[in-house]
Amino acid sequence: MPEASVPAVNEVVPGQWGPDRPIGVAVLGMGNVGSEVVRILREHADDLQARVGAPVTLRGVAVRTLDRDRGLPADLLTTDAEGLVARSDVDVVVEVIGGIDPARALILAALNAGKSVVTANKALLADYTGELAAAAERSRADLYFEAAVAGAIPVVRPLIQSLSGDRVNRVVGIVNGTTNFILSAMDETGADYGETLAEATRLGYAEADPTADVEGYDAAAKAAILASLAFHTRVTAADVFRQGISTITSEDLETASAVNCAVKLLAICERVPAGPGEPSPDEGGKERVSVRVYPALIPRKHPLATVSGAFNAVVVEAENAGRLMFYGQGAGGAPTASAVLGDLVMAARNKFFGGRAPGESVYAALPIAPIGDTPTRYHVNLKVEDRPGVLARVAGKFAEHGVSISTVRQEGHDDRARLVVVTHLATESALAETVAALADMESVTSVTSVLRLEGTEE
Amino acid sequence: MPEASVPAVNEVVPGQWGPDRPIGVAVLGMGNVGSEVVRILREHADDLQARVGAPVTLRGVAVRTLDRDRGLPADLLTTDAEGLVARSDVDVVVEVIGGIDPARALILAALNAGKSVVTANKALLADYTGELAAAAERSRADLYFEAAVAGAIPVVRPLIQSLSGDRVNRVVGIVNGTTNFILSAMDETGADYGETLAEATRLGYAEADPTADVEGYDAAAKAAILASLAFHTRVTAADVFRQGISTITSEDLETASAVNCAVKLLAICERVPAGPGEPSPDEGGKERVSVRVYPALIPRKHPLATVSGAFNAVVVEAENAGRLMFYGQGAGGAPTASAVLGDLVMAARNKFFGGRAPGESVYAALPIAPIGDTPTRYHVNLKVEDRPGVLARVAGKFAEHGVSISTVRQEGHDDRARLVVVTHLATESALAETVAALADMESVTSVTSVLRLEGTEE
Repeated sequence: MPEASVPAVNEVVPGQWGPDRPIGVAVLGMGNVGSEVVRILREHADDLQARVGAPVTLRGVAVRTLDRDRGLPADLLTTDAEGLVARSDVDVVVEVIGGIDPARALILAALNAGKSVVTANKALLADYTGELAAAAERSRADLYFEAAVAGAIPVVRPLIQSLSGDRVNRVVGIVNGTTNFILSAMDETGADYGETLAEATRLGYAEADPTADVEGYDAAAKAAILASLAFHTRVTAADVFRQGISTITSEDLETASAVNCAVKLLAICERVPAGPGEPSPDEGGKERVSVRVYPALIPRKHPLATVSGAFNAVVVEAENAGRLMFYGQGAGGAPTASAVLGDLVMAARNKFFGGRAPGESVYAALPIAPIGDTPTRYHVNLKVEDRPGVLARVAGKFAEHGVSISTVRQEGHDDRARLVVVTHLATESALAETVAALADMESVTSVTSVLRLEGTEE
Repeated sequence: MPEASVPAVNEVVPGQWGPDRPIGVAVLGMGNVGSEVVRILREHADDLQARVGAPVTLRGVAVRTLDRDRGLPADLLTTDAEGLVARSDVDVVVEVIGGIDPARALILAALNAGKSVVTANKALLADYTGELAAAAERSRADLYFEAAVAGAIPVVRPLIQSLSGDRVNRVVGIVNGTTNFILSAMDETGADYGETLAEATRLGYAEADPTADVEGYDAAAKAAILASLAFHTRVTAADVFRQGISTITSEDLETASAVNCAVKLLAICERVPAGPGEPSPDEGGKERVSVRVYPALIPRKHPLATVSGAFNAVVVEAENAGRLMFYGQGAGGAPTASAVLGDLVMAARNKFFGGRAPGESVYAALPIAPIGDTPTRYHVNLKVEDRPGVLARVAGKFAEHGVSISTVRQEGHDDRARLVVVTHLATESALAETVAALADMESVTSVTSVLRLEGTEE
């Protein structure tokens, strides 16, 4: 091959894109996010062109039905998403339909055709990043997904790029706005869960079917994505231990307040030691990854405790960078569209100048630690009989099961007598056995709540 | 040119880099940051290789003198920085010398030779980004500088990439750890500035010559970089209005506390309207950019007020993303090295896979608004004579000069009588005239302090 015929990497191939051949964009889905993406693409075309280097043009929007007026010229709307993706003048596909089907097939079709894809689809990414990334790799296309986690907050790109020279040890985040809105409101008003959920639905913070949010599925998908990026390993939604907030009571929040804590639905991703009996990393064994989503008490002075309402925040702890926090709007049409558009500009620039999004990085291939192995601290509330020696007997029961107590407090009298026990680090299995044994004790009327405690130094 | 001879963009050119031809790195400077960069490059070579796709090898470190033991093989150390940069097996140059000379010439030499450059040099970037970016553009090399602003906190990359599809209206940050450490300590201990600076020097938070930090030069350089990125326009250090903290007294902090405010050295970059008499943006005129660094009161409930000690934080307000905050360690060897290494991995990946860092984006070319035109709120402290009618006369003086008062409070008696006035938005020129007139009033003993107030809604 004669040397002169090899263009320098990144050389703009004249005539491919430019004023006469804009970079064509297809938007799949026109809900909250899609409408905002379309609006920004149309209103800020000049700025986008200046930032990309070539014009960026909306070729079409795939919608489910054509029977609504969406304020767009009719020839931009189509129900044929597949046809739109296949158009030869479409270079970048923005997928904001959500869910697995048909998003997965449409994204694969786009990537297989060498088109770049920008998606906000956490459920799809949590389970299929491997497949999508492999397709992108084969055809040297870009797959960007900043908007899939924490809306407008740049956290995907910092993990993939900015921290690529560091070793991330832990990521803890509030990544679901609906549940944070509900927990914040319960904390402020003292109202119970059902009432507050109803209010959140009325205000548009919760969907008609709130299951994905309140049962932690949405947060678990995001946790899987964050853990995969942070630890260079593949984590899917099924690897994430998940508990929602639907069993949280106003009493739980009161108890938390009494010990100067807030209750937050946390997504926690961390490196943990090799399993019992396994060789340690120093002996050639592998450390493991623990990924979990559950409501937990955190001290009010912890930076995540002050994140209220529908806001999101992610704390990243890295060996050299130390503790970083990213805060902002984690959902909503315009904030999510901001993240989508940032990715779109990058994908379009790559088309125009050459260049490529970093691919999937899962070389570490770390095993997942089961939740039973993962020690956390616990906050246990008991109704007890008001007679001498109860505290000692309860404390003894914790000791019997190898769960070490940090503090225990006795409150109230008579039939309102309560014990509040805070443990040191204990595994879930040890704690579960303790709770079962406590429930069987004659002097314990009931175990009223068991909540994890996070964000404290042991 | 036959079509078959054109490799796909990003195609790995076999034999150029790979196991037998690692990506070679030169580090210029081995101070706090350089030592950490070298340590991480050596200790985490395997991880870096996995993330880049090819081995990354340290070719040499340029130091000023060879007479110290730096724990490195002697053949890695050289005093010939120029020669090191020119070596044919050096592909990426990391510049952590700081200052203008010789950093500028070395970086230009590297870029002109098509080598990628990673730098943490805010002073250089604040004045010479245009020149450096042009050199990078000509030779299609990468220029990365995440570490130049706010150490480990990813804020450069989010502004360049994540927010590239949004319109940033305002960036406000605490971007200098030394001054934040001093102001936090003064606030906590009640000690005066001199005492606290001495303590900061003793603890290593302030340099022997603290001028660059305490007089705001360091923050101003970072503000210039942030403003350039946020608004797609060129802002240099000379465009930044700058006031340091060396005139802040313990009394200022007391006064601030009394109104539930903290005092912080803020870097503020914002879009402001076109100048007086100029056409508005709607009429084809240009909005302007105001960039300024000064100590200011901010309400304790503002997110930046809780950033204490040597930590940094940057708040970005964008049209669609809303308000984002980035928080973490803004200085120090390891945190800054984390940012440098992230850039280094990206630069090395681009070498290996093809691809290129986004270039400078200054298409907007917005004029700079002079500080005299930029309205802020003010907090003015006066010692006054304790007699009837003083408050009214002082208030009248503000009104005369067109400065509208938000609140005025009278404190103390006799020779300790004070007035604390908080204004609505006023221009610096109007405020300066008011203060001059106040100082001339018979019933005003002295104007004890004039501080700006930020972070409040008007």
